[in-house]
Amino acid sequence: MIYFDNAATSRPDEASVKQAEKFLLNDFYNPSALYKNGHRIQLEIKSSAENILQTVADCENFSLIFTSCGTEADNQAVFCAGKRGNVVTTLSEHSAIFSAVNELKQRGIEVRFANLTSEGKTDVDHLLSLVDDKTSLVSVIHVNNETGAINNIFDIAKRVKAKNKYTLFHSDGVQAYGKVPFRLTSDIDLYSVSAHKIGGVKGCGALIKRKSLVLKPYIYGGGQQQNLRSGTENVFAIKCFEYASLKRYSQIKNNFNKVDQIKTTIISGLDKELFKIISGRESSPYILCVSAVGLRGETVMHETDDSGLIIGTGSACSSNANKRHSRVILACGIDENVADGVLRLSFSAENTEKEAQTAVDILNGLVKHRKEVMR
Amino acid sequence: MIYFDNAATSRPDEASVKQAEKFLLNDFYNPSALYKNGHRIQLEIKSSAENILQTVADCENFSLIFTSCGTEADNQAVFCAGKRGNVVTTLSEHSAIFSAVNELKQRGIEVRFANLTSEGKTDVDHLLSLVDDKTSLVSVIHVNNETGAINNIFDIAKRVKAKNKYTLFHSDGVQAYGKVPFRLTSDIDLYSVSAHKIGGVKGCGALIKRKSLVLKPYIYGGGQQQNLRSGTENVFAIKCFEYASLKRYSQIKNNFNKVDQIKTTIISGLDKELFKIISGRESSPYILCVSAVGLRGETVMHETDDSGLIIGTGSACSSNANKRHSRVILACGIDENVADGVLRLSFSAENTEKEAQTAVDILNGLVKHRKEVMR
Repeated sequence: MIYFDNAATSRPDEASVKQAEKFLLNDFYNPSALYKNGHRIQLEIKSSAENILQTVADCENFSLIFTSCGTEADNQAVFCAGKRGNVVTTLSEHSAIFSAVNELKQRGIEVRFANLTSEGKTDVDHLLSLVDDKTSLVSVIHVNNETGAINNIFDIAKRVKAKNKYTLFHSDGVQAYGKVPFRLTSDIDLYSVSAHKIGGVKGCGALIKRKSLVLKPYIYGGGQQQNLRSGTENVFAIKCFEYASLKRYSQIKNNFNKVDQIKTTIISGLDKELFKIISGRESSPYILCVSAVGLRGETVMHETDDSGLIIGTGSACSSNANKRHSRVILACGIDENVADGVLRLSFSAENTEKEAQTAVDILNGLVKHRKEVMR
Repeated sequence: MIYFDNAATSRPDEASVKQAEKFLLNDFYNPSALYKNGHRIQLEIKSSAENILQTVADCENFSLIFTSCGTEADNQAVFCAGKRGNVVTTLSEHSAIFSAVNELKQRGIEVRFANLTSEGKTDVDHLLSLVDDKTSLVSVIHVNNETGAINNIFDIAKRVKAKNKYTLFHSDGVQAYGKVPFRLTSDIDLYSVSAHKIGGVKGCGALIKRKSLVLKPYIYGGGQQQNLRSGTENVFAIKCFEYASLKRYSQIKNNFNKVDQIKTTIISGLDKELFKIISGRESSPYILCVSAVGLRGETVMHETDDSGLIIGTGSACSSNANKRHSRVILACGIDENVADGVLRLSFSAENTEKEAQTAVDILNGLVKHRKEVMR
């Protein structure tokens, strides 16, 4: 079985899970408890936060709040930072932002969406034209989860701040963290990450915040995590996240090159009579969006599944929505008949060149056969 | 080591964790994915929801939303059901409700608190006097986490509905679920539970809701769980919750009697010259609140910790708040000098009579010694 749906969720890194396992049955204490075993677990969480944070930011100026997932981190950013005036975001956001800002709209906040280029990047000039003196928050996805398009959020944030220094800048970094090398700059106020996309387990994400930024909690209660996120911390998942994260960052360049080669192999191997490549040339190597033009992506996905190749059709997180076309793909200006056939292949460094070659053969074979049958 | 802080968190049930382990590394797929392995995990989650739900409610009239913890479930109840007019709650709520309704207050919703009896139960007549035609939500804790006081939420909910049939009724059942036998009645609209208090792992709770109740999500995104809670489901923790829950419910009466005996042994063994029993006669057998009058509870807790006995001082979830006295204990009408010495012992069926006897000896010995030193 070939697993090319790593953007939906990754197989947890076995060594990291094993290393964290003692926090399930042995070191199970409540980190808020004041006795020695509780306090010890509290220190473990603090060291996880620092170790994860230092992979992309300096711990002097940033801090990290553990959440239950990337979606919760995005929700905290939107609902706790987008409180007044208008909120500016893009047409390529993950549902965790898109649905949240639509809820903001219901609450009377004006929401403005920046257009995309044909490669799925944010049209930065358009975005900047939407920012004014009433903009409380700008949120721009770092790496889009469907096309792999990479936004230069550091440049965008700088230009947003130049236009309105009081505007907060957030980025959903779920498909960037642990994959695309970067360091957070002082223009980034909030940044969301997720553990289970990089070899951690489900049930843990984090919201990285500029330390001096005063933010409200989204989950209220016992005051855990400096009162920024209440609820007993998911210690096991936090430790898995730490270990998986450190491992990913120790190999980030090698991994990047490896998946880049896999993506290149697939792009060059796919029959261009059958497939249209959607992802741009500068997109993340971890995500490849193609269209089997003339077919339904879902049909192709089910057939490759039967052949032992697991791929996606756009965002797994939108599968429940039952919409025929991806709103992100359409926003790239792609025709509906091309959008119909969209497939997402997403990689990890555990994937191999051999798998890439096999995937090419399966995809070319299946789509060719189906088109012949349809004639 | 004797662990008498099971109300803070329980040691996960080893058999349940082992049974769920395959959902970490093998069945790691995203439950929203449409291919076979994704769909299979989706069905696993559905069966977990039904199996957990049927332990306390009929699946015809209730449904279950998995959350990341009991606190999140409480927050969804407060923020998504307490939207208009006034909200009525009690002075004995866990911080997950107490802090959330205080935030509601900031947003312009009037919040009314019902008084407690000396045993820590809700003064029901007072609570009913606070309910009027503008009350959108009443939230009453089922079993208080500090005193173990049990509220007859079924009677309270019935009387609330008799006064205003449009008022929604929620109960925080985190210390009741899996411990005190009950079945949800049709007067209960929302009920919060948590996995890690009953042998599940941290990172999973649930909000049980009356099926016909239209509720907004609190976490917005990809539309998971019938759009009532977005974010990739924490499959491993959900399966642990299911297995631990079924095990607890298969033994709920035996467990109840066992911990009741442990609590009785401790109450009768503690030197009444040194300790005042705070928990009422009809309180949950799982929680015993006592005061080492004249001493600081925290000091005693640290000393018993050094002697191999782990106990709490009120709610672990309020440990961060750095308040000298528990607001719940004071609301029971207990003097500050008694509140100073409050200790919470909380049990599980894994505890033994022998541990109870040893705990009595440690507590009597330590407190007697400290008082002699102080003379």
